[in-house]
Amino acid sequence: MAFQTKATIASFGGKLLKLTHQASSTDCEMALNLYLPPQATTNSLHKVPVLFYLSGLTCTGDNCSEKGFFQHGASQKGIAVVYPDTSPRGLKIAGEDDGWDFGTGAGFYVDATAEPWSKGYKMYTYINEELPKALFGAFEQLDSSRVSITGHSMGGHGALTLFLKNPGKYKSVSAFAPISNPINCPWGKKAFTGYFGESAQEKWKEHDATELIKKWSGGPLDILIDVGTGDNFYKQSQLLPENFLQSAEQSGHKDGVNVRFQPDYDHSYYFMASFADEHVNHAAKYLFA
Amino acid sequence: MAFQTKATIASFGGKLLKLTHQASSTDCEMALNLYLPPQATTNSLHKVPVLFYLSGLTCTGDNCSEKGFFQHGASQKGIAVVYPDTSPRGLKIAGEDDGWDFGTGAGFYVDATAEPWSKGYKMYTYINEELPKALFGAFEQLDSSRVSITGHSMGGHGALTLFLKNPGKYKSVSAFAPISNPINCPWGKKAFTGYFGESAQEKWKEHDATELIKKWSGGPLDILIDVGTGDNFYKQSQLLPENFLQSAEQSGHKDGVNVRFQPDYDHSYYFMASFADEHVNHAAKYLFA
Repeated sequence: MAFQTKATIASFGGKLLKLTHQASSTDCEMALNLYLPPQATTNSLHKVPVLFYLSGLTCTGDNCSEKGFFQHGASQKGIAVVYPDTSPRGLKIAGEDDGWDFGTGAGFYVDATAEPWSKGYKMYTYINEELPKALFGAFEQLDSSRVSITGHSMGGHGALTLFLKNPGKYKSVSAFAPISNPINCPWGKKAFTGYFGESAQEKWKEHDATELIKKWSGGPLDILIDVGTGDNFYKQSQLLPENFLQSAEQSGHKDGVNVRFQPDYDHSYYFMASFADEHVNHAAKYLFA
Repeated sequence: MAFQTKATIASFGGKLLKLTHQASSTDCEMALNLYLPPQATTNSLHKVPVLFYLSGLTCTGDNCSEKGFFQHGASQKGIAVVYPDTSPRGLKIAGEDDGWDFGTGAGFYVDATAEPWSKGYKMYTYINEELPKALFGAFEQLDSSRVSITGHSMGGHGALTLFLKNPGKYKSVSAFAPISNPINCPWGKKAFTGYFGESAQEKWKEHDATELIKKWSGGPLDILIDVGTGDNFYKQSQLLPENFLQSAEQSGHKDGVNVRFQPDYDHSYYFMASFADEHVNHAAKYLFA
């Protein structure tokens, strides 16, 4: 489906495109931001790799493109960055705007199977299939064979699960303060109860990074995760990176998961901005391997 | 007057302090952000130089600390950054909230002489005297002998005029899309009419960078200015950097003013973020001379 370009903004030598397109998986118009680094705007024959950045609860693709500082490193390395939205918008499903941690702005990167959410809450398919297909069809500068993924909080969960569910599809993964074990935290339990139903426990596990890593057979892992020790959601046991780490160790992937506890950092974009360059560099290592 | 620390946020290895203090010049409590780079937080005996960043119309000290990425370069160089507010708040002067370009959020870095604004709209004295005195009294890590100044739009006007009115006080100055000749643009005419009165033309000139540079006798200049060619306010002749440049040339300071027209960049924080490192480096050249 064709994209509409709502705005083109100069940023770090490249262009940030504010795009919308009609998406069938989410049954609505979706907005996103696409950062094209200078390498992709000055020479349209030069294909650049792509980093998907998945946002956290309540966010749109705008927050991180304004505050996350990914364009800084992406410009230097020559990587395009995709900032999608976090849910369908305006489906008029009863209750979709009742809370900030479920429904609008809280799609959790799953395909809902429970009514009424199964109508358009298909963020897994949207991010993993429909959006990249549309982007690679519309922007010939983007190299579909070199894609990495990262994200924050709910988006860190999305990045880890999409990576672990699709061996080989993403060249690398990293995450900031990811919801690492959603089936065991309040946010995840609420979301999965709503999107899958309380009894669909096997379905829950299919979207839980701590469960998924147990079954990983895609070769050596190199997962970079940053968590701030001053992060209130970490302290409230919403993130549970220790569970992910333990699961990685028990399944023989201890050396493949690098969880860095960053002293004093909180859950905000100040935290992400501080380490964005390092996550872009982590992706670049594999995108340019 | 003592500062209250409302929040301490880890950022690029240092700390962003959200401060408030009671200010006499503005007759109200003022909020600001102070970024202490790692060099100032790990060793309190090590004094760091200070860069004042003056914000534009409608902004508070928060916008640039979230979106401007000055902390990135400031952290590397070891420079503290002060992000003050743009006006007094809550003085309950009739009309102070009627427009976004006058009154609240639009103090224009002048000391108002006309009633009723002369009561607390004393942002010149606040930024140039009261705030630095308070900060250097409260934070012994800050080196009062090494101070530079920069700013955006109305804050670019503030940076240029404070620098030019106080030879030797600021080690360097730079500006993003500054209102360079306020006495000849709509924003400036409205503000100066309100704060000084329509007939006080000599007073107007005392706060106009294009006028001030004609009288500069403080030695060689090295003023860095970036303006985006896609900036709508530039196109609408609110900024008039050409007037400043012409005035500099006519008064023998051609080589001391470097106005860079940046292709396609707009008036937003995307623009500032893209060149923040270069402005920090410009300040560092003089702060560490």
